[in-house]
Amino acid sequence: MRLCLIGYGRVGYGFVRVLHRHGGWLAQRFGFAPRIVAVHDLRRGTVLAPAGLDLARLAAAWEENRDLGELGERGPGLDAFAVIRESEADVVVELTPTDLRTGEPAAGHIRFALASGKHVVTTNKGPVALFGKELLALAREHGVQFRFEGTVMAGTPLFSLVDFGLAAPIRRVRGILNGTTNFLLTAMEAGRTYAEALAEAQRRGYAEADPTADVEGHDALAKIVILANLVLEGDLRPSEVPCRGITGLDPAEVRRAPREGFRWKLVAEARRSADGVVAQVGPERLPLSDPLAQVGGALNALTLELDPLGAVTLVGPGAGPEVTGHAVLADLLAIHRGLR
Amino acid sequence: MRLCLIGYGRVGYGFVRVLHRHGGWLAQRFGFAPRIVAVHDLRRGTVLAPAGLDLARLAAAWEENRDLGELGERGPGLDAFAVIRESEADVVVELTPTDLRTGEPAAGHIRFALASGKHVVTTNKGPVALFGKELLALAREHGVQFRFEGTVMAGTPLFSLVDFGLAAPIRRVRGILNGTTNFLLTAMEAGRTYAEALAEAQRRGYAEADPTADVEGHDALAKIVILANLVLEGDLRPSEVPCRGITGLDPAEVRRAPREGFRWKLVAEARRSADGVVAQVGPERLPLSDPLAQVGGALNALTLELDPLGAVTLVGPGAGPEVTGHAVLADLLAIHRGLR
Repeated sequence: MRLCLIGYGRVGYGFVRVLHRHGGWLAQRFGFAPRIVAVHDLRRGTVLAPAGLDLARLAAAWEENRDLGELGERGPGLDAFAVIRESEADVVVELTPTDLRTGEPAAGHIRFALASGKHVVTTNKGPVALFGKELLALAREHGVQFRFEGTVMAGTPLFSLVDFGLAAPIRRVRGILNGTTNFLLTAMEAGRTYAEALAEAQRRGYAEADPTADVEGHDALAKIVILANLVLEGDLRPSEVPCRGITGLDPAEVRRAPREGFRWKLVAEARRSADGVVAQVGPERLPLSDPLAQVGGALNALTLELDPLGAVTLVGPGAGPEVTGHAVLADLLAIHRGLR
Repeated sequence: MRLCLIGYGRVGYGFVRVLHRHGGWLAQRFGFAPRIVAVHDLRRGTVLAPAGLDLARLAAAWEENRDLGELGERGPGLDAFAVIRESEADVVVELTPTDLRTGEPAAGHIRFALASGKHVVTTNKGPVALFGKELLALAREHGVQFRFEGTVMAGTPLFSLVDFGLAAPIRRVRGILNGTTNFLLTAMEAGRTYAEALAEAQRRGYAEADPTADVEGHDALAKIVILANLVLEGDLRPSEVPCRGITGLDPAEVRRAPREGFRWKLVAEARRSADGVVAQVGPERLPLSDPLAQVGGALNALTLELDPLGAVTLVGPGAGPEVTGHAVLADLLAIHRGLR
């Protein structure tokens, strides 16, 4: 399998490190030995290497912030589309920054790659939330796969569980899908102010300098729309889904709730209803007996409800470069194994 | 796909009901429409029906405790082996009662079916704990599948997650794999005596008249050996694994622990070590912050540890005829889809 990476930021670096560590095991266990034959990044440059890049050198180039062109054939002046076209990759790994309003530039790259008969793996929520079904249909039309395990719960293998483990339709999904706000709520419950909690989350790398997308619920919204459309077969646009974040919560109430047997969580939910699939994101005061109430810190959790299982809950890491890199690797392995 | 059911007890009945309820969805979504062409049960009789049995009538025969021979061609005097041979099924579903010491009669049925070139799905822990690797090798040799999702955590799709969702080796698994003892511990913590808790579990159908296999840890032992050998690639026999149940626990200590920030759980664990894969079963006093400490009642949970994900925990129902029937259906669907 020959890979072309479009975007080489933190997730790309995490992916390269995980592949480097587990490449031997994957080759032995599954005969799976992918080669990275092209990397394109707007800031870090472009490299084409038909024989495959050395993973240790590729990781070092990221750590030392060096131009990728030093690693092989430079490919000067090539844009992402040209790299996808000229790399002769079987699979395009789309890892450019997320834009939840337009899905670009990832959506364009993904359409172009699928239409060229290349599989696509992405961790970018934008194009999947906005155009997920269209992109899946395009992949089917061209006989290739479009996989996006890393878009929801990062490396926790949620879509694999849903795609390959269940034999009945899911009625409802409900979960904690944003680790940043969960960390903030856990810290506020322990007595921190919102500002103190946010500063700590930023220090630990859980929150960005501009935390709007997390704290206003937009990140959880994109994720629940992905689940609503691609797991529950709904047809929702993000703008149609009611969404409240945690900034309106009273910190004193967050602190007090556990003494009354409750805990505030930012809950995202999607379910089948008489009016089709509906979804929402907002803070909820959960009884402590709810499994979601027990999920603290930066963890994510999702409860799937279906007959006859009742509730099945998956808890795992929801963010992190290597964790998300594992999701990319799992998607590539599924393509290698012909799982679909 | 044509199915032959060997054993038609509670799990078989649960499977038939779940297939009946979700058959339309499975046919539409996956083009999957299995027919049950033979059922053999020592107590309930035998039916051969090459055109496929009506599921509602098959379920009713169970409820009304009628002889299966009334449903079609009687097949008088046929034993399980003859039914497997003469049914022309593609898949044998082995659901006879579990014997953790010998694995029989299931092991013999499974060997015979695999050697005849038929896929096998089972929920029977005995043959998988005792002969799992041998049976998998036999399946590979004959180009068929051997699947056993229902043996651990019943319908909670644990093996699917492990088989199809991960791209790195698991280091350790650790969980609550016996719902009966978890129910008993939860009830004892709430103030019941051991005898009261057991009586209630028996009333609810969580515990058998002779609860030995559950309360002495033998059921959890069989499950952790399955995980040790088939997930961690170990080579353990049940008799080699240290195993303690819950009967030696002091009820007062179980009640007191939460006030000190702990909770007693029967924990099964298997891990890779310098000496190969090792496993154990026994009561542990877990801090309340451990995700396993939050799993109450008859639920099961398993935490998988692997690089780079850290811990991923799956929580779901660990027992019940329909829940286990769903596991059979999921395994059959995987075979239909060619997932492996």
